[in-house]
Amino acid sequence: MNFEIDASLSGFFNPRGVALIGATQNPTKLGYGLARNLVQCNFPGEVHFVNPKGGMLLGKPLYVSVLEVPEPVDLAVILVPAQGVPQILRDCGRRGISAAIINSGGFRETGATGSALEEECLSLARKYKIRLLGPNCIGFMDTHLPLDTTFLPPPGPPAGEVAFLSHSGAICGTVIDWARGHGFGISRMISLGNQVDVNETDLLAPVAGDPHTRVITLYMEGVSNGRRFIEQAGRVTRHKPVIALKVGRFTSGQRAVASHTGALAGRESAFNAAFHRAGVIRAETSEEMFDWARALAWCPLPKGRQVVVLTNAGGPGVTAADSLEINGMQLASLNEQTLAALRDVLPPAASLHNPVDMLASATPEQYAACLRPILGDPGVQGVLVILAPPPMFSAGAVARALIPIIHNAHKPVVVALMGERLIQEAVEHFRAGHVPEYRFPERAASALGILAERAEYLERPLEQPEVPSNVHPQVVRQLLDQYIANNTTLTTSGFLPTETLCQLLEAYGIATLPVKLAKTANEAVELAQQLGYPVALKVASPDIPHKSDIGGVLLNLEDDTAVRQGFAHITDISRRMRPDAEILGAHVQHMLPAGQEVIIGAVQDQQFGTVMMFGSGGVDVEGLKDVGFALAPMTGEEAEHLLDCTWAGKKLKGYRSLPPADRQATKDALQRLAQLAADFPELEEIEINPLRILPQGQGAFAVDMRAKLNL
Amino acid sequence: MNFEIDASLSGFFNPRGVALIGATQNPTKLGYGLARNLVQCNFPGEVHFVNPKGGMLLGKPLYVSVLEVPEPVDLAVILVPAQGVPQILRDCGRRGISAAIINSGGFRETGATGSALEEECLSLARKYKIRLLGPNCIGFMDTHLPLDTTFLPPPGPPAGEVAFLSHSGAICGTVIDWARGHGFGISRMISLGNQVDVNETDLLAPVAGDPHTRVITLYMEGVSNGRRFIEQAGRVTRHKPVIALKVGRFTSGQRAVASHTGALAGRESAFNAAFHRAGVIRAETSEEMFDWARALAWCPLPKGRQVVVLTNAGGPGVTAADSLEINGMQLASLNEQTLAALRDVLPPAASLHNPVDMLASATPEQYAACLRPILGDPGVQGVLVILAPPPMFSAGAVARALIPIIHNAHKPVVVALMGERLIQEAVEHFRAGHVPEYRFPERAASALGILAERAEYLERPLEQPEVPSNVHPQVVRQLLDQYIANNTTLTTSGFLPTETLCQLLEAYGIATLPVKLAKTANEAVELAQQLGYPVALKVASPDIPHKSDIGGVLLNLEDDTAVRQGFAHITDISRRMRPDAEILGAHVQHMLPAGQEVIIGAVQDQQFGTVMMFGSGGVDVEGLKDVGFALAPMTGEEAEHLLDCTWAGKKLKGYRSLPPADRQATKDALQRLAQLAADFPELEEIEINPLRILPQGQGAFAVDMRAKLNL
Repeated sequence: MNFEIDASLSGFFNPRGVALIGATQNPTKLGYGLARNLVQCNFPGEVHFVNPKGGMLLGKPLYVSVLEVPEPVDLAVILVPAQGVPQILRDCGRRGISAAIINSGGFRETGATGSALEEECLSLARKYKIRLLGPNCIGFMDTHLPLDTTFLPPPGPPAGEVAFLSHSGAICGTVIDWARGHGFGISRMISLGNQVDVNETDLLAPVAGDPHTRVITLYMEGVSNGRRFIEQAGRVTRHKPVIALKVGRFTSGQRAVASHTGALAGRESAFNAAFHRAGVIRAETSEEMFDWARALAWCPLPKGRQVVVLTNAGGPGVTAADSLEINGMQLASLNEQTLAALRDVLPPAASLHNPVDMLASATPEQYAACLRPILGDPGVQGVLVILAPPPMFSAGAVARALIPIIHNAHKPVVVALMGERLIQEAVEHFRAGHVPEYRFPERAASALGILAERAEYLERPLEQPEVPSNVHPQVVRQLLDQYIANNTTLTTSGFLPTETLCQLLEAYGIATLPVKLAKTANEAVELAQQLGYPVALKVASPDIPHKSDIGGVLLNLEDDTAVRQGFAHITDISRRMRPDAEILGAHVQHMLPAGQEVIIGAVQDQQFGTVMMFGSGGVDVEGLKDVGFALAPMTGEEAEHLLDCTWAGKKLKGYRSLPPADRQATKDALQRLAQLAADFPELEEIEINPLRILPQGQGAFAVDMRAKLNL
Repeated sequence: MNFEIDASLSGFFNPRGVALIGATQNPTKLGYGLARNLVQCNFPGEVHFVNPKGGMLLGKPLYVSVLEVPEPVDLAVILVPAQGVPQILRDCGRRGISAAIINSGGFRETGATGSALEEECLSLARKYKIRLLGPNCIGFMDTHLPLDTTFLPPPGPPAGEVAFLSHSGAICGTVIDWARGHGFGISRMISLGNQVDVNETDLLAPVAGDPHTRVITLYMEGVSNGRRFIEQAGRVTRHKPVIALKVGRFTSGQRAVASHTGALAGRESAFNAAFHRAGVIRAETSEEMFDWARALAWCPLPKGRQVVVLTNAGGPGVTAADSLEINGMQLASLNEQTLAALRDVLPPAASLHNPVDMLASATPEQYAACLRPILGDPGVQGVLVILAPPPMFSAGAVARALIPIIHNAHKPVVVALMGERLIQEAVEHFRAGHVPEYRFPERAASALGILAERAEYLERPLEQPEVPSNVHPQVVRQLLDQYIANNTTLTTSGFLPTETLCQLLEAYGIATLPVKLAKTANEAVELAQQLGYPVALKVASPDIPHKSDIGGVLLNLEDDTAVRQGFAHITDISRRMRPDAEILGAHVQHMLPAGQEVIIGAVQDQQFGTVMMFGSGGVDVEGLKDVGFALAPMTGEEAEHLLDCTWAGKKLKGYRSLPPADRQATKDALQRLAQLAADFPELEEIEINPLRILPQGQGAFAVDMRAKLNL
């Protein structure tokens, strides 16, 4: 595996001995529950209890201090009142313990005093080289080692292949209960608590390195360091799938925004772009996360998206077909040989064409005799089996007939077991056989979709974004420094003057139209003659980012008179509409031939760095929301993907009377703007709207643009 | 209730006696299972068995013919081979039986012979005044009467408040099993089979009239008569909620289309528009349908969308808040009194602000002491309670504490019980107490959303669309007749000439720009002078619906020279691009001042009549898909709703530099076009694109339009 596992964390994952500090004889206390779990979990190493009162607990002595505990001890589990924790850490440090889980609450989550206590714990941990999990967490569980450092009431989760990392402690008990109820097993479960030291990103590699773990699930409320998360998760997902449920979608604060990109690029867009880059699958609900986890843990990946629905009930077959289409799958066509095999075993009223409806009379033997040739058909890449309890047979008998065939196939098979109580026997068989089963065809279809997505991700080439040719960061550096140095025109708004911005873009190889500043109407006429008619006039003001909003833009001016009158008009109206704005005059620009127009923009996200936006431009950007997001800098494949996910991008291939536009030039401009924004994070927002894209081979030009400098 | 119940159907719902024709002693046959169910279901009337072989079955005589069965018998249940059914119907007819359920298969679903047999059954039923359910169906169940005419293996569904009508027989057994597993009860379950006589629409009123039924659920694969369905469902939903799961979304054929409206208005848009008009709630999955059914059956409706999340687990609380927002609900602010009450009972680390997080330590008493004041807060209209199994108490104890408070409230409370096995006791309590409980906060939030939607629907005034003033159907009739009579310019394409179409629109009060046909360049110049510069020129051809696609449109022509050259240009290019098209010359039109532009269109749907489309126009209609649909004719409220569901409609209120446009005129044009298309269904497709909408008070004008006549 191409990721390193931080050796300093081995105390959590492979301790020779564990000491519980805060073990207690009082069975109503969490310290008793934790002691019980430690003893009952069959941990193969030593378990020791510490309580200053001394005595015995569950047949073991209670040592008065961790210093008394016999060797070896690598992991301390601490469950004492918060103010006592620093002293315990000192003792642990002296004792040479390398890892500690602080289950206790009473830290940052309670206010300033708690925060200070937490900081103290962290500096002690640093001093003594102890890695900390928590505080304020449920703890850590490994069902294979096994080890259970939680105080959750038994039974613990069944051992299995799904790892679960969680920012929420409260959900851990629920997930254990789900695992039991939904028939999947947990490999490792880690409650992260306040993450004073170890965070979700630190744990990705160690958990992925665990041979028992086949899928990693994450319950996230945020991320500690976005860039590091992308980097670590990106390595891990090449080996094992990671599914994240990110909550808190609507609770993030709004940033102050000065561009369409800024308005649309919320935290969620940044998370989605980050997950896409890192190959992390985003689930919308907990249900979805574990539905997918089972399929990813148990099924071979499909070679494509052609699937068959095999059913004994017509209605659910139609539902499955609908859902498969929603999930981007296609209904496979069966070849003649397969059809003949089906015809041999099914009654004449059965429907042989996908969905294959065997009718309610289908026997276990018919299920088997149909599934076998379907899986053998080279045009079929996966199967969704629907089993509504047949009136004449038990669903369990069908399960028994199908499981060996599914095990022999190298294609994924998922099962929709329709019902609740009549199908319980079949449920148990499929779970024991590691065949993912769902109560509804919609969920089975969505699991197949995720398997296909995962297969496609692993096919994606591992490109690194390359710096585009002919970019000149030193020119940009100089321009920005110069601008900041003699910021005579610098206003509080922080908008860069258009001329400077054009120079910045040109330094990164983005074509702009020469834009010249005219301070007077006469100058405007001169410039227009020089640039060539027709021209556009735009009011020049560092304080007016959306010029057309106030009537500050005139297009297609054909002659000197029009330019002269136009200059007067737009400077007048701008002064009237924005009396506080500094009006420098007007920009004159030659008008380009017709083309398609899009918006491209960048904003700096605190967590994930530069986030790029692409989509339908104009003034309707925020209304139409035909935009997509990606992280900068970007590879050609990422630029391609970003174009493909919007109508604006699709349309570049040509649409009705629109000729194909220069898609290559668009991607190039996108990659160049991404590089510029990534290289200069002080460009807080930068946006080209519109980027005019001429017909194929003729290039793309930044027609209007704005950028805000974070000073 | 303002709907009539068809008296001819009473034989199904209130039979004094039932005869099963096809009862058999062979326990592996369906005829045995059906006999068993009839005997075991505790039907209070007479049950008789018929089998020509005679003998006894389950303690009852097997009569050799239905003619032998003693009085009274109102309902025949027929389960004999298909070819024997007509003779049985004749006997039933002679016997005076008024209702028959044909469970047997072997009819239309098997081909031509079966279809003929089915037709024969229908004509016999008409002759003898027998109403038929089926054939090829599972039958009918009433858990309250009680009566069970199915052959499904026991146990039957628990008695309850949810009626289920289904086009799929195979799903019925599954739904019974779901009902048991998910803790809801069924009132009536009806499998519709081939619907040779009675269909889903016929049954809406009788089922809604059943006092035990509180919610009607429909599993639909289509609709027998769309207009009648809307009318019947619209009456029923004023009294009882109807939830439909319509499957077969992607399997409908494509119509041949000649307009954007035609391309976008698929069967699903028509279904959505129909469901909206009739107040039918559309579920996307079976799970959703029954999740919602439980809430609608058991909860009072909320007075608004302000809800509180009460939780013992932070993470799921955040998930719930996210999901509520997705479902259009808002997090209520608690008043000071409520906050004080919460502060009294919760520990200081608890979060009092919505979501109210009581922490994992929350006791049953704390749950109760928090829920009571929250429900009493006048700013709160519903509550979502989250219960993750608390480590120290049983979830069942929390349920027992909460149920009396929920029963005393007049506000809906739904519960997310997180987990699986640890919560079973709580599940049983809540189900017995008719409190809807879900395994995931997302599902609970969606149920609250549906309750709010239902409450808003009942508030919606019961308007009937009024015919707009100054519409002149007789003028349109005359124009169309005249056009058809001397169809010298009528081509196979069926497109109406623009002049005629303008007259049609004007006859219904839709303002158009005078469009004049110029056959020569000289005529074009004369007309331009007459209409006033600037003008637009558009190629005139009945064969070219999308003129701009081939460069057949020129805008903003300012003088005679431009018009003369333009005429030559567009007629030339049209001849080159569409050599087969008949080119009549060019249309000349005065150019309007700037405004917003939208598309409005109508198509005729076979099932639901005229379907209207509104949205963002231009050439990007099909790419941006910023369109909505509704049925014609439409009320003011419906027009308003249609505008509101698109960006194009929202933007009419003004956006950035766009001044508010004449929204009233837009709605008016929409209602007038709806009336026109509804009055003249031979207008197969009619579309105005764009409709130019001037600033407030200045009207809306049809700038370009096309219509296809179905001859």
